Amino acid sequence: MSDQVRIVEVGPRDGLQNENTPISVEARVGFIESLLGAGLTTIEVGAFVSPKAIPQMQGSAEVLRGVQHLAGEFHVLVPNEKGYEAARAAGAKVIAVFASASEGFSRANINCSVADSIERFKPVIERAQADGIKVRGYVSCVLGCPYDGAVDPQAVVDVATTLWDLGCTEVSLGDTIGVGTPKKVRELLRACAEAVPMQSLAMHFHDTYGQALANLYAGLEEGARVIDSAAGGLGGCPYAPGATGNVATEDVVYLLEGLGVATGVDLDKLVTASNAVGALLGRAPPSRVAAAISAKQRRTS
Amino acid sequence: MSDQVRIVEVGPRDGLQNENTPISVEARVGFIESLLGAGLTTIEVGAFVSPKAIPQMQGSAEVLRGVQHLAGEFHVLVPNEKGYEAARAAGAKVIAVFASASEGFSRANINCSVADSIERFKPVIERAQADGIKVRGYVSCVLGCPYDGAVDPQAVVDVATTLWDLGCTEVSLGDTIGVGTPKKVRELLRACAEAVPMQSLAMHFHDTYGQALANLYAGLEEGARVIDSAAGGLGGCPYAPGATGNVATEDVVYLLEGLGVATGVDLDKLVTASNAVGALLGRAPPSRVAAAISAKQRRTS
Repeated sequence: MSDQVRIVEVGPRDGLQNENTPISVEARVGFIESLLGAGLTTIEVGAFVSPKAIPQMQGSAEVLRGVQHLAGEFHVLVPNEKGYEAARAAGAKVIAVFASASEGFSRANINCSVADSIERFKPVIERAQADGIKVRGYVSCVLGCPYDGAVDPQAVVDVATTLWDLGCTEVSLGDTIGVGTPKKVRELLRACAEAVPMQSLAMHFHDTYGQALANLYAGLEEGARVIDSAAGGLGGCPYAPGATGNVATEDVVYLLEGLGVATGVDLDKLVTASNAVGALLGRAPPSRVAAAISAKQRRTS
Repeated sequence: MSDQVRIVEVGPRDGLQNENTPISVEARVGFIESLLGAGLTTIEVGAFVSPKAIPQMQGSAEVLRGVQHLAGEFHVLVPNEKGYEAARAAGAKVIAVFASASEGFSRANINCSVADSIERFKPVIERAQADGIKVRGYVSCVLGCPYDGAVDPQAVVDVATTLWDLGCTEVSLGDTIGVGTPKKVRELLRACAEAVPMQSLAMHFHDTYGQALANLYAGLEEGARVIDSAAGGLGGCPYAPGATGNVATEDVVYLLEGLGVATGVDLDKLVTASNAVGALLGRAPPSRVAAAISAKQRRTS
């Protein structure tokens, strides 16, 4: 397990999008700069969605413009052609599209069937490819759905295969409500790897039930090598208010370093970045590592 | 991994001992009753230590007397012969002794060397065996020490072997400050299992750095089958105030059930028990599962 693992930091997008308090473009740019300063290199920085529906992502074009002169790979979420045009105009080099593995979540989240959502972003992928923009594909609810309950692994494989066949260069498997456990993660990764190369699958696990690190460890043992995480464990869970959001980048880095996998991330700097955003949001980051390191920082300061 | 796993619930002792707010004998008896009601069967209920040094454990004899008519296996911690006599007088059937794998922790915690601490509880084990009382042995700081830093696995093996040879029927390996990661856990378990049968080793992991479930999963894969945990994740960390304590029983149960290991524990009842103690302590339990289930309970009530 000593080979390289790639961390995709999703705090500025998936994290902040699910926090109740919107924070300013300037603060988000500063957050991303501090994440880069801590050693993270691939960062999802915004979403070209309706600011009425998701005020937390308002000004994503300005955020992207504010950071893209810096060294790093910046991703933005794009739901449709309108969003694609805005992302391209802002200089996006990597976009992410998303589909659900469950019909219930697809209807509730984007008000259409899974098949219709795929039709909707087909032209987005085509245009991005023509424009030389890389596309990442998210599959949500891969281990359970807040509306439909259990999700058939074959439904996940089908959507992942479609995204891959359409030209996504990476498929991120989202345990959106954090209900997975290691055995199910292993089985799902094995099934998906029949269609998408294991090195092109990302593990995007939420920590709602505290299982995310155990699940990531199981996935690493299966050979997966890309992990999505959010600084501080930002994000919360809209389906269980008060519960935990994305797995914390700090906790992931601690795990990887303990396994002998060098991440290049400075945990002290990362915790400082997470605490700064936590202060804007009015709460301490839920990350266990952030709490432990913050306690040490308080003692030595 | 479908064979039986034994959970040793340590919330009423290791958990409450490390909480700032002492709670009454009556409340502790009620807590233990609710844990039994949730399906837990092996519970560490108190410690026969100086009430001046550890006021949280004051009245442990009354707690033990208050529950021992109930169906369950109740453990109490015993530091020395004086404590042993009090535990026996209160009807203890299982006691636990403890030694550190690190000299720094031994000196700071019980003011003597590791070797001296073993001499101190030798007569305790002898008397317990003569009295037909089972003895469990704790080794603390098995993956790191707040004073000495890294701990040599051989030091852990030496103490574990001594405890086993002296007659302990189970040796619990404590990651007291929660710094371990899965690879180190596997290596440690393999080393200890050379001297103590794997089925007689318990995993006692704190969740300070969020690694506990990943570590337990790795340990289960190695063949370990006993897990110490605390309802709600009680306990905090005296070496990192604000950080997390024992791994939460709720999170362990969720993991095990997801792996197909039946625990017999009713998670809703367990969360209710943890929340009731949390209310007495003035804070929500840190368990992720408790937070997620509490959110659901609030929505449906």
